[in-house]
Amino acid sequence: MTTLAVIGKDVPKRDGAEKVTGRTRYLHDLELPRLAHGKILRSRHPHACIVRIDTSRAAALPGVLAVLTGAEVEQHPFGFVKDQLALKTEKVRCVRDEVAAVAAESAAIAEAALELIEVEYEELPAVFDPRAAVRPGAPLVHEERPTNHTDLRYQFSHGDVERAFAEAAAVVEGEFRLNFVTPACLGTMVAIADWDPEGRLTMWSTTQVPFLYQRDLAQALGISGDRIRVLQPPVGGNFGRGLDLYPIDVIAALLARRARRPVKIEFERVEEFIACPTREPCTIRLRTAADAEGRLLARDCHVVIDNGAYVSWGSTTPYVMLSTVAGLYRCPAVRFDTTIAYTNNPYSGSMRGYGNLESTFAVESQMDEVADRLGLDRLEIRRRNVTRSGDVNPQGFVVTSCAMSECLDAVAGAVAQGLPAVESGWRRGVGYAGMFHVGGGARIYRSDGCGAIVKLDDFGRVSLLTGATEIGQGSETVLAMIVAETLGIPLDRVDVVNSDTAIKPWDVGAHASRTTFIAGNAARLAAEKLRGQLLAMAVDELEAPAERLRTAEGWIFVSDEPERRIAYDRAARAGHLRERGQTLVAEAFYDPPTEMLDKDLRGNVSATYGFAAQAAVLDVETATGLIRVRRIVSAHDVGRALNPLAAEGQIHGGIHMGLGYALSERLVVQAGQILTASFMDYAVLKADDMPELVVRLIESGESEGPFGAKGLGESGVIPVSAAVANAVKDATGVRFTELPITPAAVHAALASRSVRA
Amino acid sequence: MTTLAVIGKDVPKRDGAEKVTGRTRYLHDLELPRLAHGKILRSRHPHACIVRIDTSRAAALPGVLAVLTGAEVEQHPFGFVKDQLALKTEKVRCVRDEVAAVAAESAAIAEAALELIEVEYEELPAVFDPRAAVRPGAPLVHEERPTNHTDLRYQFSHGDVERAFAEAAAVVEGEFRLNFVTPACLGTMVAIADWDPEGRLTMWSTTQVPFLYQRDLAQALGISGDRIRVLQPPVGGNFGRGLDLYPIDVIAALLARRARRPVKIEFERVEEFIACPTREPCTIRLRTAADAEGRLLARDCHVVIDNGAYVSWGSTTPYVMLSTVAGLYRCPAVRFDTTIAYTNNPYSGSMRGYGNLESTFAVESQMDEVADRLGLDRLEIRRRNVTRSGDVNPQGFVVTSCAMSECLDAVAGAVAQGLPAVESGWRRGVGYAGMFHVGGGARIYRSDGCGAIVKLDDFGRVSLLTGATEIGQGSETVLAMIVAETLGIPLDRVDVVNSDTAIKPWDVGAHASRTTFIAGNAARLAAEKLRGQLLAMAVDELEAPAERLRTAEGWIFVSDEPERRIAYDRAARAGHLRERGQTLVAEAFYDPPTEMLDKDLRGNVSATYGFAAQAAVLDVETATGLIRVRRIVSAHDVGRALNPLAAEGQIHGGIHMGLGYALSERLVVQAGQILTASFMDYAVLKADDMPELVVRLIESGESEGPFGAKGLGESGVIPVSAAVANAVKDATGVRFTELPITPAAVHAALASRSVRA
Repeated sequence: MTTLAVIGKDVPKRDGAEKVTGRTRYLHDLELPRLAHGKILRSRHPHACIVRIDTSRAAALPGVLAVLTGAEVEQHPFGFVKDQLALKTEKVRCVRDEVAAVAAESAAIAEAALELIEVEYEELPAVFDPRAAVRPGAPLVHEERPTNHTDLRYQFSHGDVERAFAEAAAVVEGEFRLNFVTPACLGTMVAIADWDPEGRLTMWSTTQVPFLYQRDLAQALGISGDRIRVLQPPVGGNFGRGLDLYPIDVIAALLARRARRPVKIEFERVEEFIACPTREPCTIRLRTAADAEGRLLARDCHVVIDNGAYVSWGSTTPYVMLSTVAGLYRCPAVRFDTTIAYTNNPYSGSMRGYGNLESTFAVESQMDEVADRLGLDRLEIRRRNVTRSGDVNPQGFVVTSCAMSECLDAVAGAVAQGLPAVESGWRRGVGYAGMFHVGGGARIYRSDGCGAIVKLDDFGRVSLLTGATEIGQGSETVLAMIVAETLGIPLDRVDVVNSDTAIKPWDVGAHASRTTFIAGNAARLAAEKLRGQLLAMAVDELEAPAERLRTAEGWIFVSDEPERRIAYDRAARAGHLRERGQTLVAEAFYDPPTEMLDKDLRGNVSATYGFAAQAAVLDVETATGLIRVRRIVSAHDVGRALNPLAAEGQIHGGIHMGLGYALSERLVVQAGQILTASFMDYAVLKADDMPELVVRLIESGESEGPFGAKGLGESGVIPVSAAVANAVKDATGVRFTELPITPAAVHAALASRSVRA
Repeated sequence: MTTLAVIGKDVPKRDGAEKVTGRTRYLHDLELPRLAHGKILRSRHPHACIVRIDTSRAAALPGVLAVLTGAEVEQHPFGFVKDQLALKTEKVRCVRDEVAAVAAESAAIAEAALELIEVEYEELPAVFDPRAAVRPGAPLVHEERPTNHTDLRYQFSHGDVERAFAEAAAVVEGEFRLNFVTPACLGTMVAIADWDPEGRLTMWSTTQVPFLYQRDLAQALGISGDRIRVLQPPVGGNFGRGLDLYPIDVIAALLARRARRPVKIEFERVEEFIACPTREPCTIRLRTAADAEGRLLARDCHVVIDNGAYVSWGSTTPYVMLSTVAGLYRCPAVRFDTTIAYTNNPYSGSMRGYGNLESTFAVESQMDEVADRLGLDRLEIRRRNVTRSGDVNPQGFVVTSCAMSECLDAVAGAVAQGLPAVESGWRRGVGYAGMFHVGGGARIYRSDGCGAIVKLDDFGRVSLLTGATEIGQGSETVLAMIVAETLGIPLDRVDVVNSDTAIKPWDVGAHASRTTFIAGNAARLAAEKLRGQLLAMAVDELEAPAERLRTAEGWIFVSDEPERRIAYDRAARAGHLRERGQTLVAEAFYDPPTEMLDKDLRGNVSATYGFAAQAAVLDVETATGLIRVRRIVSAHDVGRALNPLAAEGQIHGGIHMGLGYALSERLVVQAGQILTASFMDYAVLKADDMPELVVRLIESGESEGPFGAKGLGESGVIPVSAAVANAVKDATGVRFTELPITPAAVHAALASRSVRA
């Protein structure tokens, strides 16, 4: 690949220095004149009728500005299938359910007022297991529906699955159980709502899909989308949490309307554990068939998802689960089906990886099982089934660039070098897992596009107004790099403006690892236009045709006579400060050449796909079940690493989250109640829990991507739990099919085996 | 004129409701994390050597973060002729001079620290009168210069002035004396500076010329302009105050750099009176020659300006004074010259009307005197000399649309209707004055342009990103109206974004009554482009060619079949949410077809010119000299009144300021010291001091203007003092040639006349 001036260099994230020096003004820090503070009263019961709500004592408390219940405020259903109201009226369906809300002069007064609200419930029989929920006679979560089946079902069939299983040399089968986890963002959810005197609403939000949020919030409030402006101050993590509209947003707006004051609702940590959308709990029953050489013949998969009380994005993850089952390795026949049922548990949202961790855990566990069954090397079986450039998979995904083989090679090469010796009493295991994910956007809406506006001022300072959303993933940095590279200017001359829907052009939002690819292409296109305008301006100054002009380091010069040159800012002024002068502004919109999945779940949903392979090396203490991860090797086909430092950081962060999913994190929900509502109970890995991380960035050069890049944001987290489970199996001989694999679980498994042995 | 949907309707200013309900967050309200507070120590002496500054006690005060003096900080000269440093080093030249500055944890600590700074001065002889200043032997304000003459001199000559005076039927001559006044903004000056870890500076400022400020501040700090971002929160008035860079800005940046914290300097009221740039004090010697019919033959004018200690915009006002002398009425021969001399007084900036109040006071006083000399009616002499469409005046100004005659007629028609009877002991007078000012920008920089970006989102909400600066004049409102009218959408769907140089495209700034005309044209052009894109999108939907499509009230429809229509937002979504879809963003840059004045002060500096006429009706109590203004009639050629309510409000505000200039306001500066440093001493008129105001908006339809408009921002203030002086003369027979015309002055004049009588 050509060496570039900015692209490919390690650049610290531009928000980094601000954050570590305490200068960042998070959403939590935001104050407004006359700001009131809102609090939400939630149900104590997972399923109950609301008999009576008496808010009179709360309303009488000095400092209380507004008290709302669902019965006395106009609201409209919202959510993925419009099955909930922000403030619940006749029934509560999970403990997260919002039954009343207060706005007051301070958060403390609002909290005190909640205590004064009397709610009389009549408890109802509840159901917490999705399979039990769809049995006849189960309590109905939504009483107006005939059953607890949601309307969501994802069915797919390709090839002759039955025949493949009949003819297979090896068939493995298993059920994989994934539990609730939560993104555990250091910054909790916040919504600030402010109505202006003309009835227009400004929202400061943790959303990561501001334009969809604008649409959804408008519908929930019964106003038109043009009345809403969405602002996105810095957030302390998001990881998919901000992909939907939630009651916090609607309630903040309703309270602000009633109180005639701006209202801020900011979750405390306990509330964040209760009310932040989780990763969906599910059970994946998977069968895999292979021939004697280990080539996959078929997969058959059925996913049961605990939908919880309302449908949100968590129940739509089979979209992605399917793509793993059908596409992580070459597989000629695939069958896929789902059962997604309402229960009285909290409902789930999207969370980084979005179904792919779950399905990769199942698929990659069975890759090892097939290898074991056939006596094949575990890397070799993956190599034999590897996806290659030019493949079109059963769903019709077209694989353009693909360096999956190279990722496997890189992992194999780095897995064993210089590891510490295994200590006595410990056993070492190595596990592998591959990864397949969208890498060029994901057309789940009719638009998968992003807009960009680039302006260059008289001082050579450039602003990129991008639709993209920065949620800590480094998009501002990489987009600035793309603009700087395209224009040929120093990076620190580029501002990125991206946090106000009144300013930024359209974008779908930060999800599906799409920002670098989609917003990057938009930024590149706009910058190319602007560069063309500037070169046209410089033609007079340099007395050379535009074709002979080049740009670098803030200069425009004649290609074969670089001493004939003019600085960017001087060229801009020369073009501007003259008769019929012009200033420099250019805009572009990039929507990738992709399709939405059709009703049969077929269609080339992304302009390119990302691949990765990981190896986990870990030691298990047989006496205690303690697992010490020694090293994670993570090799990623990134197309091109635009900012290797940030790419590696993304992968590090993903591995951290993946290790938590594999080993320690579990939001314990029992009988609908959340039992782990603090960081004492919910075990996010600390920095010193982290193993050595070895990252390899493989550059396959994606022709559709900006400078060859493809998406990477979710890639690191996805294969970790599978690699860890395979390594634990390698170390102990025990196949774990449920996460997290805690020391207690390992100890119990080893103990029972030793009893059995 | 065609009736339009939005243009021409009375629309309250969009910042009005926010302001009157206390929701506006002014610059003063702005807080930043770790914000430190800065204070400036000023000279006690108008002219002195700085012998020694000891800041050690101040630096030792707990809570003090930084103490700066000119000797120990790197700084670069700035100002119109780069003749000052922000922190003075060897000498102080006026009492405003900055000798040290402190940043501290609080403003109170910073103030206390100032008290601890010891400065030893050696006083120097000073000079306070510009004529005395240029006499040989006068103390030199800038000791390195041979004399106190500044380098500024404005000389103009056209026609045979000597012969005209020799042949005239009437010659009048006089000297008019104008004193210091100050804009007296309710919001004082503020500068907040914040350096990021990469050495880039963000300034929150009261500037009204953000891009020029960016340039000038960079030079003063010795950095390149691309390092500076300028933000403009709402201000409490500006009136030209924000047209230059001042020490407050540079010192805030220097303190912030030293303290490594954001620093806010906010003037208290006393400091605002001392340090806010004033309107320039000057003496205008004017001679006017006319023939027997009252037709002007020639004017000869010499202006002496007290430049004060440093050159700022106040000393450049002869640019405009000349245009009044040469252009307010037809005048075939003109001679103009200036003496602009350094003194040890405070220096002046630009202030609404910018020289034109001063010259109009002189010119219009002499129109009455010529009429009296020739026995002509005072309106009639004006009619005989009126400028007309098609005129090219001595400076080469090309008069396009011109309704000066109609303005005179309108004033004449409204001056006397239904006035209360004159009370006993009072005498009534009526005075007239005309007004001539730029109305289509003013090319005082090489660019007089403005950029605009318009985007339309999927909800039909439109944002205008404009270069324009809102300083309370209503530009956001009128620009939104222009966009709404052009697009055919309801006004409240349009956001205006205009307060961040990182976002907004280039603009020269808010001065010369240029915003509606220049920024309005840019907004109109961008909106027209966007409308064209949208109509192209709607062609498919409506199955009609774009030529047959019209827009109104948020709909696109077929011109002769209005029931075939599609809503704006639906059309936008239809164009966006499809294969190869597009979003809607358009940009434009408008630079008017004008010239800079050449070295002989000739050139068509504005794309069109504004005209107005005023009449003042007032009663004078002969015993006391008290003046009670009964009515001001103000008729304005506005081209087209885009927002009549705001236009009238602009004129009301102008008249208020003009009446203060005429009757009550005077910043008393004696021996270089400012004696009127509070609103107890400095007499701004209160609401109930205001007379009846009768405004007539005359629509001449300027073809180059947006929807026919021309600039109006300064028009109301300019003729007031002339009309008032002429009315006082009419009532009392006394010609006042100095402002303000206070009761004491009137009483003294009447008393001395009665003594003489």
